[in-house]
Amino acid sequence: MSGKLKIALIGAGRIGRVHAENLAFRMPEVTLAAVSDVVEKAASSLAADFGVAMTTTDYGELLADASIDAVVICSSTDTHARIIIEAARAGKHIFCEKPIDFELGRIDEALAAVEAARVKLQVGFNRRFDPNFQRARDLVADGRVGTPHLVRITSRDPEPPPLDYVRVSGGLFADMTIHDFDMARFLIADEVVEVYAAGAVLVDAAIGEAGDIDTAMVTLRYRGGAIGTIDNSRKAVYGYDQRVEVFGSGGGVVVSNDHPNTAVCSDARAVSRDLPLYFFLERYEASYLGEMRAFADAVLSDTPPLVSGIDGRIPVVMAKAAARSCAENRPIRLDEIEG
Amino acid sequence: MSGKLKIALIGAGRIGRVHAENLAFRMPEVTLAAVSDVVEKAASSLAADFGVAMTTTDYGELLADASIDAVVICSSTDTHARIIIEAARAGKHIFCEKPIDFELGRIDEALAAVEAARVKLQVGFNRRFDPNFQRARDLVADGRVGTPHLVRITSRDPEPPPLDYVRVSGGLFADMTIHDFDMARFLIADEVVEVYAAGAVLVDAAIGEAGDIDTAMVTLRYRGGAIGTIDNSRKAVYGYDQRVEVFGSGGGVVVSNDHPNTAVCSDARAVSRDLPLYFFLERYEASYLGEMRAFADAVLSDTPPLVSGIDGRIPVVMAKAAARSCAENRPIRLDEIEG
Amino acid sequence: MSGKLKIALIGAGRIGRVHAENLAFRMPEVTLAAVSDVVEKAASSLAADFGVAMTTTDYGELLADASIDAVVICSSTDTHARIIIEAARAGKHIFCEKPIDFELGRIDEALAAVEAARVKLQVGFNRRFDPNFQRARDLVADGRVGTPHLVRITSRDPEPPPLDYVRVSGGLFADMTIHDFDMARFLIADEVVEVYAAGAVLVDAAIGEAGDIDTAMVTLRYRGGAIGTIDNSRKAVYGYDQRVEVFGSGGGVVVSNDHPNTAVCSDARAVSRDLPLYFFLERYEASYLGEMRAFADAVLSDTPPLVSGIDGRIPVVMAKAAARSCAENRPIRLDEIEG
Amino acid sequence: MSGKLKIALIGAGRIGRVHAENLAFRMPEVTLAAVSDVVEKAASSLAADFGVAMTTTDYGELLADASIDAVVICSSTDTHARIIIEAARAGKHIFCEKPIDFELGRIDEALAAVEAARVKLQVGFNRRFDPNFQRARDLVADGRVGTPHLVRITSRDPEPPPLDYVRVSGGLFADMTIHDFDMARFLIADEVVEVYAAGAVLVDAAIGEAGDIDTAMVTLRYRGGAIGTIDNSRKAVYGYDQRVEVFGSGGGVVVSNDHPNTAVCSDARAVSRDLPLYFFLERYEASYLGEMRAFADAVLSDTPPLVSGIDGRIPVVMAKAAARSCAENRPIRLDEIEG
Repeated sequence: MSGKLKIALIGAGRIGRVHAENLAFRMPEVTLAAVSDVVEKAASSLAADFGVAMTTTDYGELLADASIDAVVICSSTDTHARIIIEAARAGKHIFCEKPIDFELGRIDEALAAVEAARVKLQVGFNRRFDPNFQRARDLVADGRVGTPHLVRITSRDPEPPPLDYVRVSGGLFADMTIHDFDMARFLIADEVVEVYAAGAVLVDAAIGEAGDIDTAMVTLRYRGGAIGTIDNSRKAVYGYDQRVEVFGSGGGVVVSNDHPNTAVCSDARAVSRDLPLYFFLERYEASYLGEMRAFADAVLSDTPPLVSGIDGRIPVVMAKAAARSCAENRPIRLDEIEG
Repeated sequence: MSGKLKIALIGAGRIGRVHAENLAFRMPEVTLAAVSDVVEKAASSLAADFGVAMTTTDYGELLADASIDAVVICSSTDTHARIIIEAARAGKHIFCEKPIDFELGRIDEALAAVEAARVKLQVGFNRRFDPNFQRARDLVADGRVGTPHLVRITSRDPEPPPLDYVRVSGGLFADMTIHDFDMARFLIADEVVEVYAAGAVLVDAAIGEAGDIDTAMVTLRYRGGAIGTIDNSRKAVYGYDQRVEVFGSGGGVVVSNDHPNTAVCSDARAVSRDLPLYFFLERYEASYLGEMRAFADAVLSDTPPLVSGIDGRIPVVMAKAAARSCAENRPIRLDEIEG
Repeated sequence: MSGKLKIALIGAGRIGRVHAENLAFRMPEVTLAAVSDVVEKAASSLAADFGVAMTTTDYGELLADASIDAVVICSSTDTHARIIIEAARAGKHIFCEKPIDFELGRIDEALAAVEAARVKLQVGFNRRFDPNFQRARDLVADGRVGTPHLVRITSRDPEPPPLDYVRVSGGLFADMTIHDFDMARFLIADEVVEVYAAGAVLVDAAIGEAGDIDTAMVTLRYRGGAIGTIDNSRKAVYGYDQRVEVFGSGGGVVVSNDHPNTAVCSDARAVSRDLPLYFFLERYEASYLGEMRAFADAVLSDTPPLVSGIDGRIPVVMAKAAARSCAENRPIRLDEIEG
Repeated sequence: MSGKLKIALIGAGRIGRVHAENLAFRMPEVTLAAVSDVVEKAASSLAADFGVAMTTTDYGELLADASIDAVVICSSTDTHARIIIEAARAGKHIFCEKPIDFELGRIDEALAAVEAARVKLQVGFNRRFDPNFQRARDLVADGRVGTPHLVRITSRDPEPPPLDYVRVSGGLFADMTIHDFDMARFLIADEVVEVYAAGAVLVDAAIGEAGDIDTAMVTLRYRGGAIGTIDNSRKAVYGYDQRVEVFGSGGGVVVSNDHPNTAVCSDARAVSRDLPLYFFLERYEASYLGEMRAFADAVLSDTPPLVSGIDGRIPVVMAKAAARSCAENRPIRLDEIEG
């Protein structure tokens, strides 16, 4: 491929705007050429802010435009699989927000379409591009902790989503823990074969009434023998809590939270500092740019994307296993979900 | 009780010497009056070092001595229950190293004897007196983290014990995790009702051949709904790793490791500091003094010991439940052990 | 003023490009309308990268363009005063990189022109907009440390500039410490009345041969009685070292360095993390955006700039006092420089 | 020397009791054989608490006792020089609290007596035995920071001494900074040749009325070219603030404060931890034991004490230079004091 990569954005909501800003302003190798949204005003507003030439309410127009090299899919989850399939058939490279779908059958159809079309597909597990987690993963990959034995992931949101969202979210494991399931695989490059999930409703009884949980502790068994744990809460009053640890035969690496500043104040009562960055837009700002750059690079240099379609599928399997484990209070092997 | 508390030490091994030094040199309210050990030289050497007037190879002599107010039992685990019973019948107050016994029936006999004799019994869960964990517990008790939702305990030794010890240790859960089971109860003052334990042999295959595991991740369900996790390893190359975290509706408290100094060195490669304190004698030095002072205070002021006989019993139940969970790969309720 | 602020950039070097990117891509309230540079290619390259409509090698054209509201001066230091004067006469608001000039007479002429024209002038002491220092200053201003007693500023570069630059830099105090002199005033909102500077050549003898020093410790006396210190080095092998501390009757605030990630690795030898951010482009990235936003806001809302012309002048006086103190090895009052 | 070292303690005040506890209980190589104090009750109370056989109100008796190998002088400063001289003549090895005296002539007499008698003299600069500073010094000595360029010492007390004490203290530099002057020499093993001291009365006007200052910033010039700074305050509301930093051609080492625990609490407002250890008895506990062990070792192994008589003398010179610098507001060379 020569010249700049021409990209079209499908979906102009909150995360769509994050990607648009990066594509338009921080990636000289890319032209954000078009944007579609079912809400016309959303598309036109985004286009105005980021200098996008073409807007439409019908993403089909973008797929039909031969000058477009790739699409970035930020529409609602229920549209992902269908758009992937159509985009693949149109020969577009694809970046798709997670999850591909909640149903494995539909994911498999999408991945098959991608494979048949020989286009690139990168799934939006942005946390892999967080500088902290990336450094942890690199240290592990470089052997600095030896053979991994234990993995610990803490992932707590500052506040629960609205109940309307909770009801259609697919449940905590599919909606929130899915990022941590991906992280569990990313950090040590091994596969999880079994999960045990303990869940509870401790934050808000209304979440339980909506059929979900708000607190969880998941045990992971890796194929290679390592053991992992993920703890989740829908509400950490001190802000977004995103930490990981990998412990192994040669040592350990611990990632702590990012803070808005390093000022530490001591007075007659305590030594204190400001709370961690509030939520994902603040904490993961760098990662959103990182994943877009990686996607553009995969396309431009014709190399495999750093987050593949399979990487998008496996956490969905893990989420289903965790949900069943939680419901039946027993460990669930991932192959029980596939079976 | 008037005057100094007269204490006799039973068992002059490594931990006996730790207690002896504290009793003899750092507790003006106490006289370390006698020491017994089946190895005469051990008793006499300890007596010489810490100015103890009376030595014997027969602890029965100490129990028969009416001037002795209390005994500190540091002999081998298989002798604990019997000595507790005899000491109680002799009217002595009792400090006993953990565990009271591996068998619940024998523990119950010992506790019954204590209760019948109306003497004090304090069990040696010294970590409750570690300034770090104590502060965490106090913050929780003061409501600083609100209602507890999640508890995380990391407990990793710098190196595994000798294989000969492993074979008679009662297994990782009874030998090592037992402290963490106590910590789980101590930190949030709630009871665990169910455990799920994932274990592995990752450190040394010989430990597996000896019938034990060396790595574990235990999930705890509390009566009040909170969820906990304990991760253990027999070998952390960077030293003793002893951290806890309590997370709740109002915030969280995190305890990290103690280091021998605060010097941080920056050179052209990294910012670095020295490893954490090596092992329990270094890390928990203050806690050993703290528990002895608390025991003396309980006796002198006739108040309940801060670690009761029941506190000594419950972690044994938890260890048994964890061992069964690990063997059967399913969550085990504590009442299954009692049944 | 209605609509977007139209800004022209004068000087398309390294720092010019930093400002251009912020003005073009991160400030919706602004249009970067033009750029000039004596090197045509520099101007056109910048214009291409950031979508600037007009380029010229003659900044006079920009000043003559009535549609331009304000200029950002990033040309070489010896041109600052002259361009300020011309821009002011042309009725443009002015952002000027520090220093305004090395000579007080020329600074005074520039400030007089600004005052006569009633335009805004903001000087590029970007560190005031660093989130860490800003938080420290806010804590001080909010009374969290009480009355300031001691101020400590550490400012060390990762490596010395080229000797050719050293020779024309105006000397360490004018070139490097000048930022710290501004910081000293910013942090506690008090004026320095006397300085004592100890300097040395410890990093590189060639710097001494070029007539400069590379290491310094400056003592500051504030009008209100507080005492400050600045330590400088041209070479910290571990990277850019930018820390401050304010200590007062009610407590203290300490700002430490920013790091590229929070990963901490423990192995058999040490606990370590990556070095601080390498140099000013990394460490002060946020501050460059912050100062541009503040400038635009001052113009758009017709409020005084947060770094005034006087704020640009005083550190030059302090640098001269420090240089004389260093040469004569005695404390120098600032009014000796003015006299 | 064979057998245990027999030591007599002269002065049974607060610091005398600290040494007594270490000598009696934590140093098997030593017997604390006798104690003298002009207040009989002080001596007898200490003797009772730490099992000391002999007490007297006349230290001359201790010096006359041939069985005594060494004395530890903790009496008031005005008695130090005289007792050193008498002890030396009696052939006793000597540990003496700092300072030896405020007058150089009397110090020189004492040192001459020590040299003539060929006994050991160790001066009580205990901070050299603080594990944090010791580690910093070792890192410097091992070349980990290369050639030292900058030294920074922060030394702030939690609260000022009583005014009655201030009046006879010899002034801030002789009473408080003297420890930091010693630290400045200890850390990089180079000599200071010139000081510049800026002092102020900011904590309490009554201290100024008593003829002293309560806040100071001292610049140090080392013979080898390095520059140092010491900042002092009589009142840090957050507790004892004792930090150092050495920066050099190869990197830097920073020592921060010790805290009573590692618990860090996050709630909806801040991330906070408890204040540093309150004052010297807490912070420097380990150092008092360390210096006694070093003294005993020097005597028993016939090696030079780690803090010599000259080490005791030089900080007094530095204090005098600082006081004159502060009074005359000019840098003072140490040889001006000697002249």
